[in-house]
Amino acid sequence: MKVCKFGGTSVASAEQIKKVANIIQADPTRRIVVVSAPGKRTSEDIKVTDLLIDLAHTVIAKKPYEEKIATVVSRYEDNAIGLGLDHEICDIIELDLKARCEQAIHLTDEMLMDSLKASGEDNNAKMVAAYFNSIGIPTRYVSPKEGLVVNDVPERTMAIAEAYEQLASLKDSDEIILFPGFFGYTKSGLLRTFDRGGSDITGAILAAAVGADLYENFTDVDCVFSANPKVVNNPAEITEITYREMRELSYAGFSVFHDEALMPVVKQGIPVNIKNTNNPSAPGTRIVAKREESKRPVTGISADSGFSILYVSKYLMNREIGFGRKLLQILEEEDISYEHTPSGLDDISVIIRSYQLDDEKEARILDRVTNELHADDVNFRHGFSMIVVVGEGMKYKTGLAASAATAIARTGANIEMINQGSSEVSLSFGVLRQYEDVILKELYNEFFTAVTA
Amino acid sequence: MKVCKFGGTSVASAEQIKKVANIIQADPTRRIVVVSAPGKRTSEDIKVTDLLIDLAHTVIAKKPYEEKIATVVSRYEDNAIGLGLDHEICDIIELDLKARCEQAIHLTDEMLMDSLKASGEDNNAKMVAAYFNSIGIPTRYVSPKEGLVVNDVPERTMAIAEAYEQLASLKDSDEIILFPGFFGYTKSGLLRTFDRGGSDITGAILAAAVGADLYENFTDVDCVFSANPKVVNNPAEITEITYREMRELSYAGFSVFHDEALMPVVKQGIPVNIKNTNNPSAPGTRIVAKREESKRPVTGISADSGFSILYVSKYLMNREIGFGRKLLQILEEEDISYEHTPSGLDDISVIIRSYQLDDEKEARILDRVTNELHADDVNFRHGFSMIVVVGEGMKYKTGLAASAATAIARTGANIEMINQGSSEVSLSFGVLRQYEDVILKELYNEFFTAVTA
Repeated sequence: MKVCKFGGTSVASAEQIKKVANIIQADPTRRIVVVSAPGKRTSEDIKVTDLLIDLAHTVIAKKPYEEKIATVVSRYEDNAIGLGLDHEICDIIELDLKARCEQAIHLTDEMLMDSLKASGEDNNAKMVAAYFNSIGIPTRYVSPKEGLVVNDVPERTMAIAEAYEQLASLKDSDEIILFPGFFGYTKSGLLRTFDRGGSDITGAILAAAVGADLYENFTDVDCVFSANPKVVNNPAEITEITYREMRELSYAGFSVFHDEALMPVVKQGIPVNIKNTNNPSAPGTRIVAKREESKRPVTGISADSGFSILYVSKYLMNREIGFGRKLLQILEEEDISYEHTPSGLDDISVIIRSYQLDDEKEARILDRVTNELHADDVNFRHGFSMIVVVGEGMKYKTGLAASAATAIARTGANIEMINQGSSEVSLSFGVLRQYEDVILKELYNEFFTAVTA
Repeated sequence: MKVCKFGGTSVASAEQIKKVANIIQADPTRRIVVVSAPGKRTSEDIKVTDLLIDLAHTVIAKKPYEEKIATVVSRYEDNAIGLGLDHEICDIIELDLKARCEQAIHLTDEMLMDSLKASGEDNNAKMVAAYFNSIGIPTRYVSPKEGLVVNDVPERTMAIAEAYEQLASLKDSDEIILFPGFFGYTKSGLLRTFDRGGSDITGAILAAAVGADLYENFTDVDCVFSANPKVVNNPAEITEITYREMRELSYAGFSVFHDEALMPVVKQGIPVNIKNTNNPSAPGTRIVAKREESKRPVTGISADSGFSILYVSKYLMNREIGFGRKLLQILEEEDISYEHTPSGLDDISVIIRSYQLDDEKEARILDRVTNELHADDVNFRHGFSMIVVVGEGMKYKTGLAASAATAIARTGANIEMINQGSSEVSLSFGVLRQYEDVILKELYNEFFTAVTA
C-alpha cells in the first residue's frame, strides 16, 4: 500500500483537489492521504495558514475577529462550490474556527496560535474527505487525536513510539483514510504542531506506522534536479537518489523535501517518491536506501551561502589532547552547530552558518578561545559559500576530486576549504560568496554536460 | 649573539669536536654551546647514551657494573687522547659515573636511569669545555643546576618561567658557555630529562633565555629537504621555511629537528638555522617566523604511514548539537589524539595514529559510539598514509588543490580523505599505504620539477 501526501498547492483549489481525487482513483493501492492546508492558487494569493496566523494575532490582541473568520471560511466555500459540495462542510468549518477562538481564554497565546494554524490542515482534510465521499470514494477523515501521539513541551515536537503502534491499524481500513498533516496531540491531549515540513512529517509517520511499500509525496514540481535550476540551465532530472545523497544535497536548491521529515521512513527503508500533482504520469524522483550504480558518479551539486569560518591556531595544537573537543564545547555552550572542521596540525577552521552568530556572541567566543584555550590566533571571517558535490558513485571514481578542483580553478576562484571524509559520498568546498554561482555552473558542466554529450 | 647546539654525531669523536671548536672560533658571536652525548662514530658504533642505558640496567639488576663503567670511560678516553687532553678529565668522568651508580640505593630505578643517561651530555660538556680551554678559548662549563629549572613529576618535563630568568645572565659571560643538553633540575633538586629531542630543547631554552639573535642547530645534514630523500631523488634543499611550515611538515622525512623543541624560540620569534658540522660553510636551512614569498607555492611535501580512520555515520548528525564534541570526548577519555576530522553532513571520519589503538580500545570505542551516541554505523579502518603538501605561498596560488589532486589521480590511487582549512598552509590527503611513495614522487614532480625545469 501507498501513503500519499499532498502539499499546499496540490489542494489549493477545487480544480487541484479534483486532480488529487483522480490520482487516488488511478491506483487502488493508494490508501492513506495526508493533506496540507490550502496553499496559494496564484502567486498573489494568500495561504490559508497565513490567514489563520492573522486571525490568531487578532484574537490574541482581543480585537473583533468575526470578519477574519469569514475570510478563512470563504476560501473553503470557494473550494466547496467548485467541488459541488453542499454548505454543510463550510458550516462545520465555521463552527470549528469559532470554537477554537472562543477557547482562547483557556489557552496560552502559543497554544491558541498552534490550534488555529493546525485548523488549516484539519478542516481541509474534512473537506477533501467530504468531496471523496461525494464522488463515490469511500473515505474516512481521521483526526490526529486517533493515534498521532507526540512528546511533551518543551522538546521539539516528535511522534513517540506509541503513535506508530496506534496508527498501525489504519492499514486495515476499507475506506480511504484522509489525515490532516502538520500536528499531533500529547498524551494529555494538548495539540502540538511540527516545526518545519510539517505535513511531510505526518505522511512519513503514517507510512512508517502502516509499513507502506511507498510514500508518495505530491508537490508542484516534476522531480528533484541535479542542480539549482535558478542557476544552472535545464539541469538533469534525478530519477533515483539515496537517502544519504538527498541529505548531503539538503543545501539550497534542494528544498523540495524537508530532509528531517524523511527520518521515520529512513528508519524502515521505505522508498519515497516525489511526484507532481499537476503531472502525475511523470515518474518523479525516487528516494531509496540503496540504488543501482548509475553511469554518472555525481548525483547532484548543491550550493549555499551564509557561512562563516572560525579560525583558531595554536603552536603544537595537535599535541594537545582535548583541544578540538574544548573548542567545540565552547560553541555548544553558545548553542552553535557547525558544518565542518577542516584542520592543519596547528590550526582548525570551524565552518558555521552565519545566522547563528552576532557581534556579542563572536566577541564572547573570541574571548573564551583566547583565554581558556590560549590560542595564538583566533578570528571570524564571513561571506563564504559551501559547494557540495554528492554521489554514491564518487568513491569508485578515481580523479574525481581532481576534476572538481580543476573545474573550480577554471573559474579563477580560490578554494578556501576542502573537506572529504572516508564515506566519500560528498566532497565540499568553501569559497567566497561571489564565486558561488559561477562555480556551480562550472561543476555542473564538468560532471553532467560532458558525460551526456 | 648566537646559541649553538651540536648533536651526537657532531661531538662523537676528537675529530668532530675539533670541527666544533673551529666553528665557534670562526664567529665571535657564537657565545653559548650546547652539546649532546657522543653519538656514533661509524654506523656500527654504539652511542654513549645506549652504553649508559645498559649500565643503568646492570646497576638496577644489582649485577657487577665496574666493567660497564670502564666501557663508557674508554669512549671519553679515546676522545681525550685525540684532543691532546691529559687524563684528569677522564678521572673526573669516572668518579662522576661511580658516584651516580653508588647513589642507586637512594633513587628509584627511573631516577637512576635519568641520572646515568644525563651523564652522557653532562660529562661530554665538561670534556669539550676542557678542550676549548686547552686550545685557548676561555670556556666555562655550566651545569643545568645553575638555572635550568624544570617542573615536577608527573608532568612532562618542561622548563618553568624561573629558568628563563635565571639563565638570562649567561649572556653577560666573558667566557664561552658550555652547557650539557637534555636535562634540568626541579626546584627541589631532582634531575629530570626531556622527553624527546632533548638537547634541541636545551638549546632553544637558552636561546630564548638570553634573547639570542639566532639559534644554530648543528647536525650532520646540510639542510632540510623538500621531500624525503629516501623516496624522492635529490629533492630540492629548503633554504628558508617558517615555523608553521616546519610544523606541518613534521611527519616522516622531516625528523631532522624535533618540532616541540622549537617552542621556546617560536614564542620569541628567534630564527633557527639548521647547519652541518661537517660542512659549516653551507648556508643550511633557516626556520623563521615570516619569510619572503618564494617562487614556489609549495615548500615541502611530507608523507607518513600508520594511520587509522574511525568512521561514524548517523542520519541527521549535523542537526545534533554536541555530536562531534561527544565523539571527541570519548576519544579523549581513551587518551587518543587525532589528526583531522573530515566530515559530511551525516558522517565524520576521525584520522588517528594507529599506534594509539589496540583491539580492546577499538571495541570499547565502537561500543560507546554505538550505545551512547546511537550512531547508525561506526567502524575502524587501518593501513592509511597521510600526504601533506605544505607552503605559505599556497593560499595565493589558485588551482593548487586541483594540481595536487590531479597528480594523485595520475598514480591511479583513490583519495580517501581530503582536508584543507582556511589557513591554507597545508593540504592533506589520506590514501592507502601502498600508494604513499608513488604519490609522494608524483607530487614532488608536480610542484618542484616542473617549476625548476
